[in-house]
Amino acid sequence: MFQLHEQLRRDTLPICRMKLCLVQLMNDSQYPWLVLVPAAENLTEICDLSEKQRKLLINEIAQAERVLKHVFQPHKMNAAALGNVVPQLHVHVIARFKEDPAWPGPIWGKVEPKPYDPGDLRGIITKLQNAFIARL
Amino acid sequence: MFQLHEQLRRDTLPICRMKLCLVQLMNDSQYPWLVLVPAAENLTEICDLSEKQRKLLINEIAQAERVLKHVFQPHKMNAAALGNVVPQLHVHVIARFKEDPAWPGPIWGKVEPKPYDPGDLRGIITKLQNAFIARL
Repeated sequence: MFQLHEQLRRDTLPICRMKLCLVQLMNDSQYPWLVLVPAAENLTEICDLSEKQRKLLINEIAQAERVLKHVFQPHKMNAAALGNVVPQLHVHVIARFKEDPAWPGPIWGKVEPKPYDPGDLRGIITKLQNAFIARL
Repeated sequence: MFQLHEQLRRDTLPICRMKLCLVQLMNDSQYPWLVLVPAAENLTEICDLSEKQRKLLINEIAQAERVLKHVFQPHKMNAAALGNVVPQLHVHVIARFKEDPAWPGPIWGKVEPKPYDPGDLRGIITKLQNAFIARL
C-alpha cells in the first residue's frame, strides 16, 4: 500500500490529491515549493511509471506550475525529480524569484530551510488549494 | 525558427533527434548527462507545452533514462527542468553514482565541468546513439 515517505511527511504539508499525485507544500518559506508524489507503490524513477501514469504526471506538473505562477507571479519555474536521498519518486515544482536566496542556482543545499510562520500557513495553504480547485 | 540556445550549443554535443526533443550530451565526463531540448520556439516552462508535446516530453525523458540506465548502470536517475540561466526549455537527465563528486546532492554548481577526453568521446556518443536506436 502506498505511504508517503517519512521524510516527506516530516518536511511537507498536505495541499490536495490530484488523479495521480499527492500535492504537498514544502515547509520552507524562502521558496513557494510544491512536491508532487505519485500515489503508487514502488516507484523510484520516471521510467518506472506506465505510459498512462507518465501522462498524468506531466499534466499534474504543468498544473502545479500554473497554480504557483497564478498565486506567486514568479520569474521562473523549476521542476525536478532527484530522489538521491528520498528514493520514493517525487517531483519538486518550485517558483523562483531573482531575489530568492539561491538564484540563479538550484535551491537544494544552498541555505537552511526557514519554516513558515504558523500564522501565515493557513492562508497560503488555502490560496493554493483554491487555485488547484479552479483548474487554471 | 527553433535554434538551440548558444550556451547549450557550446556545452553539449549532439546525440540524436527524437520526435519532440534534440538529445545532447553535456560535455562533462564526471556524470553521464543528457540534455533534452524540445525543438519548438518560445518554450520556457513545462506548462508552455501543449498536451501533446507534454506527453512526448515525458515519454522522451523516460526513454533517455532507460538509455542511460542501460549504458551506464547508475544508482539513480535525476531529471530536472531548471532554466534559471538558459531560459530555453531544456530537461537535464543525469545518471548518478554514489561515487560521483556531487552525490547525494544535485550536480549543478558543485564542481567545475571536466570535458571528455576527445579520444573517449566517439565511443560514448556511438553507444548512446545505438541505445536510442534500440528503443529500449
